[in-house]
Amino acid sequence: MATDTAAPPTGYVQPEIDVPALTALLDGRYADVRNLVRTNLAEYASILDEADELSIDDFRERVKEVVVEMAATGQTGMGFPEQYGGGGDIGASIAAFETLAYGDLSVLVKVGVQFGLFGGAILQLGTQHHHDAYLRDLITGKLMGCFAMTETGHGSNVQALGTVARYDVDAQEFVITTTTESARKDYIGNAARHAQVAVVFAQLEVGDRSEGVHAFVVPIRDGATPCPGVRIEDDGRKMGLNGVDNGRIWFDGVRVPRTALLNRFADVTPEGVYESAIDNPNRRFFTMLGTLVQGRVCVGGAGINASKVALAIATKYAVRRRQFEATSDEQEELLLDYGLHQRRLLPLIARTYALHFAQEVVALQLHDVFSGHTDDEHTRRELESRAAGTKALGTWHATRTIQECREACGGAGYLAINRFAALKADTDVFTTFEGDNHVLLQLVAKGLLTDYASGFEDLDQLGMVRFVTNLAVETVVERTSAHKLLERVRDLLPGGDEWDQEAGLLDPAYQLAMLRYREEHMLAGVARRLKRGIDQGTNPGEVFSAVQDHVIAAANAHVERLVLEAFVDKVRALPDGDTKVALSLLCDLFALSTIESDRAWFMEHGRLTVQRSKAISREIGGLCRKVRPLAVDLVDAWGVPPEMLRSPDLVAGPINT
Amino acid sequence: MATDTAAPPTGYVQPEIDVPALTALLDGRYADVRNLVRTNLAEYASILDEADELSIDDFRERVKEVVVEMAATGQTGMGFPEQYGGGGDIGASIAAFETLAYGDLSVLVKVGVQFGLFGGAILQLGTQHHHDAYLRDLITGKLMGCFAMTETGHGSNVQALGTVARYDVDAQEFVITTTTESARKDYIGNAARHAQVAVVFAQLEVGDRSEGVHAFVVPIRDGATPCPGVRIEDDGRKMGLNGVDNGRIWFDGVRVPRTALLNRFADVTPEGVYESAIDNPNRRFFTMLGTLVQGRVCVGGAGINASKVALAIATKYAVRRRQFEATSDEQEELLLDYGLHQRRLLPLIARTYALHFAQEVVALQLHDVFSGHTDDEHTRRELESRAAGTKALGTWHATRTIQECREACGGAGYLAINRFAALKADTDVFTTFEGDNHVLLQLVAKGLLTDYASGFEDLDQLGMVRFVTNLAVETVVERTSAHKLLERVRDLLPGGDEWDQEAGLLDPAYQLAMLRYREEHMLAGVARRLKRGIDQGTNPGEVFSAVQDHVIAAANAHVERLVLEAFVDKVRALPDGDTKVALSLLCDLFALSTIESDRAWFMEHGRLTVQRSKAISREIGGLCRKVRPLAVDLVDAWGVPPEMLRSPDLVAGPINT
Repeated sequence: MATDTAAPPTGYVQPEIDVPALTALLDGRYADVRNLVRTNLAEYASILDEADELSIDDFRERVKEVVVEMAATGQTGMGFPEQYGGGGDIGASIAAFETLAYGDLSVLVKVGVQFGLFGGAILQLGTQHHHDAYLRDLITGKLMGCFAMTETGHGSNVQALGTVARYDVDAQEFVITTTTESARKDYIGNAARHAQVAVVFAQLEVGDRSEGVHAFVVPIRDGATPCPGVRIEDDGRKMGLNGVDNGRIWFDGVRVPRTALLNRFADVTPEGVYESAIDNPNRRFFTMLGTLVQGRVCVGGAGINASKVALAIATKYAVRRRQFEATSDEQEELLLDYGLHQRRLLPLIARTYALHFAQEVVALQLHDVFSGHTDDEHTRRELESRAAGTKALGTWHATRTIQECREACGGAGYLAINRFAALKADTDVFTTFEGDNHVLLQLVAKGLLTDYASGFEDLDQLGMVRFVTNLAVETVVERTSAHKLLERVRDLLPGGDEWDQEAGLLDPAYQLAMLRYREEHMLAGVARRLKRGIDQGTNPGEVFSAVQDHVIAAANAHVERLVLEAFVDKVRALPDGDTKVALSLLCDLFALSTIESDRAWFMEHGRLTVQRSKAISREIGGLCRKVRPLAVDLVDAWGVPPEMLRSPDLVAGPINT
Repeated sequence: MATDTAAPPTGYVQPEIDVPALTALLDGRYADVRNLVRTNLAEYASILDEADELSIDDFRERVKEVVVEMAATGQTGMGFPEQYGGGGDIGASIAAFETLAYGDLSVLVKVGVQFGLFGGAILQLGTQHHHDAYLRDLITGKLMGCFAMTETGHGSNVQALGTVARYDVDAQEFVITTTTESARKDYIGNAARHAQVAVVFAQLEVGDRSEGVHAFVVPIRDGATPCPGVRIEDDGRKMGLNGVDNGRIWFDGVRVPRTALLNRFADVTPEGVYESAIDNPNRRFFTMLGTLVQGRVCVGGAGINASKVALAIATKYAVRRRQFEATSDEQEELLLDYGLHQRRLLPLIARTYALHFAQEVVALQLHDVFSGHTDDEHTRRELESRAAGTKALGTWHATRTIQECREACGGAGYLAINRFAALKADTDVFTTFEGDNHVLLQLVAKGLLTDYASGFEDLDQLGMVRFVTNLAVETVVERTSAHKLLERVRDLLPGGDEWDQEAGLLDPAYQLAMLRYREEHMLAGVARRLKRGIDQGTNPGEVFSAVQDHVIAAANAHVERLVLEAFVDKVRALPDGDTKVALSLLCDLFALSTIESDRAWFMEHGRLTVQRSKAISREIGGLCRKVRPLAVDLVDAWGVPPEMLRSPDLVAGPINT
């Protein structure tokens, strides 16, 4: 058995990190964009204090002001077409948004509401008429708008919204109505105060037919006064993000012209004939929704970057703060020299790097699809799935990381000036908005079970369950048979049936094979359980409900595999040198701690012996000790502007020595 | 293999819960006290709104007002001697405090600071002189005080505090001085505004000798003005608990009379001779600190009760909220009918019940020890360990549970009116104050490793490490040898070496044997790793640092075993009937989900086969389905006053149907 404090093997040379070079690697092709945002964040650093000091009303105004001023630098309009004053680069707009997450998150979310959700809906669901009418003014922030999709009664299940838009053929107008109290629009950012216009999602009724959910541009406010028939209520104080004015909206027979329908995918003729190039209503609905995927990619990236802020503070604190004489009578021990503290922080740093590179991949895919470089049906479905998965893992990572970092900074971490209060409160809802994480992971799993079948988006929720549990299961069961599964893994990692026992723990092929095996095996298990339930004649919905945690686990396994692949690919592509060595350590730490945290599963499924499982835990301890001297450089390389760390008592100021 | 939706076995009759009877069982001997607090909470329900609406300054004043008015009902003084106007019942004071955690937590913490920390220090560390001088006025809240122990530089390691109290024999006074910037008192509740007096912990210097940390009563404020030599700064806004005025204090040669020393355990004669009945300075220090254990017991109970508020809201919401057509085309599914939602909430309800009963045990032990019923050295050490462990598990449970419940209530959970914002922000620091949870679990482990040896408290931190790693290890290795371990487990559960494979999963003896085996085996592992490190000549501190996560795991295993024992004992003592059946289900759910979440360890150590591990997960699913119909009654039985749930949109109001 290895000793606990084994020296590194002979020949191992501790790498040194060139921080600016690593920052350049992380920033990638959009380094200039990220630096513009860093400069803007430093310029408006006072917003972090103002978030604590101003009243909610004043803070909302201040946030709006900052957003509009940032818009003037071009930072927030990068994804819009150049002819309307935008930057014409979707990837740049994601990079800008992600970087903005280093700062106050009300500013971030206000930007997301105005340019991502509202602007994105006009751009993606509208046609030239709407672009001409709105884009130029919304890009500058002159026209503020909101995205009125969620209702009190329906958030996740958007297809069941209660708001109705009835076409009045005589007047050639749509009449928008909140049909029940639970159909009021709710939690709508920009609605309580600033939005002049709303993109309203409503059930379109033409004649006596319901055509499903469509989006309409509806003026809701004239200056500060709600328009006739529109009632607006403030959602009031929230856990965080109080610089964003969320509100509720009721519509009482509000009339808008026929051209208010955002008609890229469907239209109503003046005579009241509904027309769409997409016949199936479900497919039409999911196609519309699919164009809004950028929001999910952005929120995932924001969660990852908010984690960086927390880890940067906690790491810097842990190399300055001493507590207890542990190894010496003379001096207390630095927190980061405790094995436990390393175990708490360093795997989170590794996972943050992993998620960063996974986010880079999904952002690039989105850029390529929406720039028309690679835009087929299957690629879009894969992108949507990847966006959903990365969003779920990135935002849960933020919740967990910020909490761990706060606790690792003790009572000091509880003071508002030390940043965790805002980080924790503001990011909390990231796991919910732009899609509840559990719902998103179910989408991921359904995509996998159906292999993104072309009929997939034709189905509503219950239909999808039936599809998965009936038609697709046979295919999946076949595709994921144990035999084929092992064959595929063997392609990754030669070694026969002993592939999982012979390989070195630090071999990326081994790590990937483990995650791939888990993913496919879990998926096959879900398929078989579904099939068994169906064969027994149980209601498909009940069967699905019973295997739901298995479904979530399979989706999580899939996304973690994608994340590891992104990290491994990145490291492989690096030239030899210290950066490669350092990132390899981190990649191993991520891979092994991911396997460790699910080691029960691997043992249950015969892919991890007891001895090897224990060896993995020891190896993680060893990796932590190697990463320990690199920790500060690793968090510095993220390039969080020092002003955004705030925390004078943690990263500077009096310390016990 | 069992089916996923198996019907309960024949003969099983779903129990019905008599809610008032279950409440009476949970409230125990202090039902009257708890009901007084419930009444007071309802009386002052407006404080929940005021927390959102008032400025920090106004809210602090309002909280003080509420605390003083509650004090007048006798609620907050129950633990003080009757001759000073107290209630003379320590157990009652804990029950009152725990119940107060259903309401606004600034009120709770202000009560804790004034009556628990400040009042507790006067009562436990002072003598009649101090009792006569202060108790009557502090019990009514006429005299507000603070507990100035923590410094910016030292929170966990209190023995290393930097503040000095030098005895001036000529003046017969102590001179209190903040020696360095990091020795300023920090995060001190009541300091920024309300405290007139502080109990200050400082290094006592008499002549040229340092006698270690002692406590002194020091006036810090005359009306609103700091006393000469005292400087006070506001800690400013915090993540939560903003109704408590935390601050920093510096002392610049502040003089107090000789009688200001709280002299129950040590005194200085007028002539400057230091006297104490306890010779060893470390033992003296830990004896003083040990008298303050009530704070930890109270915070643990508060964490558990705050979890109840969150679970009550999330459960009531989950039986009203529908989303997605899952089993029917006609109606969307209730959240709590989804398997995943049951898995998210119901084990947390079970664990909350388990912790409730464990808390009842530790509160009773504290009552007995501090009422002088059973007060020997070993019992005190065990109480301190149990208090530390229950506090750590109870407060981490709060953090985790409140987060899960917020996410389970979606976007609505993010609105301040729906309670989670305050619950989350206010409880966050519970894992840190009254002892950082990781530090507390290390204390638990050290107690176990030394078997609460009588020399235990004679050692400082590094000395303790050396003791554990040198002297005690042999004993522990012997005591926890695999052979003896299995013998002890076999006493619990006959069945030879197959005890873990033959027993029924729902047999409490099996569940307890599993947790006991894990605890003892982990402890033995720690001891062996320590011994090996020492034998290899490694620095004891380094050895300890390398096994630190193992130490924490062992302590956690110990406390979880105590928690399960408390639950099993409670259920066993119940008369046959539906309540017993219902609590047995919950107890099984707690036991099996505890084993499940550490099933990797059990497999690694040969006490769980793959088949049995999977069977446990299936059994948990089955238990969840049985508990599902009881969920609302189970949370109602906690008796959280409806006013404290707030959350009009979640537990009442418009809902989608």
